[in-house]
Amino acid sequence: MNSQGLETAFINRLVAGFSRSPRSRTAPHESDAELIDIFLGGIPAAAPLLAVTTDTISEEIGTGLYQDPYLFGWMAVMANLSDLAAVGAEPVGLLISETFPDEYDDCAIDKIQAGIADACVAARTHVLGGDTNSGQALSITGTALGLVNDGRCLTRKGCAPGDVLYASGPLGRGNGFALSVWGNGRSESLPGGYRPRARIAEGIVLRGIASSCTDTSDGFLCALDQLLVVNAVGFNISERWEEKLDRSSLELVRSHGLPPWLLLAGCHGEFELIFTVSESRRKLFADAAASIGWSPIELGIVTGPTGVTLPVGGALRTIDVAHLRNLSFRLPGGIGKYVEALVEYDHQMVSGG
Amino acid sequence: MNSQGLETAFINRLVAGFSRSPRSRTAPHESDAELIDIFLGGIPAAAPLLAVTTDTISEEIGTGLYQDPYLFGWMAVMANLSDLAAVGAEPVGLLISETFPDEYDDCAIDKIQAGIADACVAARTHVLGGDTNSGQALSITGTALGLVNDGRCLTRKGCAPGDVLYASGPLGRGNGFALSVWGNGRSESLPGGYRPRARIAEGIVLRGIASSCTDTSDGFLCALDQLLVVNAVGFNISERWEEKLDRSSLELVRSHGLPPWLLLAGCHGEFELIFTVSESRRKLFADAAASIGWSPIELGIVTGPTGVTLPVGGALRTIDVAHLRNLSFRLPGGIGKYVEALVEYDHQMVSGG
Repeated sequence: MNSQGLETAFINRLVAGFSRSPRSRTAPHESDAELIDIFLGGIPAAAPLLAVTTDTISEEIGTGLYQDPYLFGWMAVMANLSDLAAVGAEPVGLLISETFPDEYDDCAIDKIQAGIADACVAARTHVLGGDTNSGQALSITGTALGLVNDGRCLTRKGCAPGDVLYASGPLGRGNGFALSVWGNGRSESLPGGYRPRARIAEGIVLRGIASSCTDTSDGFLCALDQLLVVNAVGFNISERWEEKLDRSSLELVRSHGLPPWLLLAGCHGEFELIFTVSESRRKLFADAAASIGWSPIELGIVTGPTGVTLPVGGALRTIDVAHLRNLSFRLPGGIGKYVEALVEYDHQMVSGG
Repeated sequence: MNSQGLETAFINRLVAGFSRSPRSRTAPHESDAELIDIFLGGIPAAAPLLAVTTDTISEEIGTGLYQDPYLFGWMAVMANLSDLAAVGAEPVGLLISETFPDEYDDCAIDKIQAGIADACVAARTHVLGGDTNSGQALSITGTALGLVNDGRCLTRKGCAPGDVLYASGPLGRGNGFALSVWGNGRSESLPGGYRPRARIAEGIVLRGIASSCTDTSDGFLCALDQLLVVNAVGFNISERWEEKLDRSSLELVRSHGLPPWLLLAGCHGEFELIFTVSESRRKLFADAAASIGWSPIELGIVTGPTGVTLPVGGALRTIDVAHLRNLSFRLPGGIGKYVEALVEYDHQMVSGG
């Protein structure tokens, strides 16, 4: 397989026969949401771009990672709003298409709807419409609409060596939560639970300041690989990354005897933004972040195309992020095999294998 | 159950906890697509409304009604574009979220994508973006975006007694197709197959002329019931409705010894538009239709709230459309029971039971 990764190749195959819209301002893989010039210059004023994105919650339900119907609804909203955040868009609203199995429990339906409603309130947005169907498996597809008002687009593309890498908040809670559900056969609760919030206000601040941005919906290292491929760069993660992890998740991973960096490697994300800022804009960025009471987390630096280096087990390691990303995509054997493969990769790396 | 129908009640339950967006120009059930004032007056010019709609193709696949992967893709596009047509919108593009079962056949995936691509070409629009997932059951959710440029909205609401009822084209092919797949245990092909086209150009003509409009995605009588409930009216269908059915479907239904009006009653639609025009606008409408080479089909007349009357078996019958609509919604026993129930309703009606 080439370095672009299995999922990217699969998506490229899916879209190979599609013609590109003259309204699209973004190329495939280069932004978390599509940026659309809906009027094609038909309106005289400087019209905003429409940001649109769609995401389905089904796999997480089917595998048992999500068990609380409230979380199904919450995530159908937040996963989509997080993509809007990563392009710096202000939400206009969402459409929700839900497929319920026959005889699906009415109470569970009410909980799903409460999760949707509460997530919209939390993000100050609204459900605009939707659709219901019956089908074999429960599935919820959200589509989020947003506006980018001033033409300063935020995409995955644009960072250069020397830029500083940040996260919008602590990393690892997505994988910590997955570990709490599946870890070593003993299910336990992660203090504080798993209830990500799309970083909308932060994304708006980043527009016109950050040189690239994506969300960590599939985990930190998968997100980093997206930036790496699109920008043909590498990343050096700083010595003190472990201190910047989500505390509860770090304790959990340690109690399981697993290496903390797996919180970055696993494919269940925390829906933070990771982004880069050039040296010349760091002061501007610090002021803008402070203005909304936000303390972003510095993670490292953009380098030339030399991969991702991360201090692990007392030494600087180069991580094969494309390999890790591929592990999570259509791995025969499901989740158990996936975690085994991650641990095996850690052993090989630390033993120099 | 009250007269609003089970599906309407279910949707009302789903949205009960949602707050309404200040950007929404349409109330629930009153239009096929949502009409959204995306700028809330933030742009000085007379900005267009955004029309958005979402629809999932899963049930038709799960029940075996759709068996050709090309049709899955085609319908994921056309079902959504048909909703845009029913509000008179011009398509901007679509988002497609696809869930594939593990180990799903690569050739079938290519056929699905070809159906999507060809439907977009046929409608002169584009896929703007999407998402892929793995899950238990194949499912394709489309979301269509469109623009209504001149503020003259077309919705389900607005018709009055005396208006004339039309269809954009022959009715019955959706149910004819379903009969060809399932009918009496002998699968056969419907000449010409099933490949609906969204009536986009016709919807644009109807904007500012028709007093109400909806598409027949769930069959003609279900669509009529939507207009009946929203407008608190009734409909008299004209004597010669049988001549206006799709020819191949009519022959098929006769060869099965089934009553032709079941082509109107079944819940698998032909994706035509049904709409009403006031007497004072009939000349304007005739000219506008002729200007695009379109011959709409006159079906009957809007009446006071006295139900739907249809000449069947030599006599004028009043059809309980709410009952028929409910038959198709979550009927235990699936399709076989549904067709049995329709036939039984016909027997009761004709025998005066």
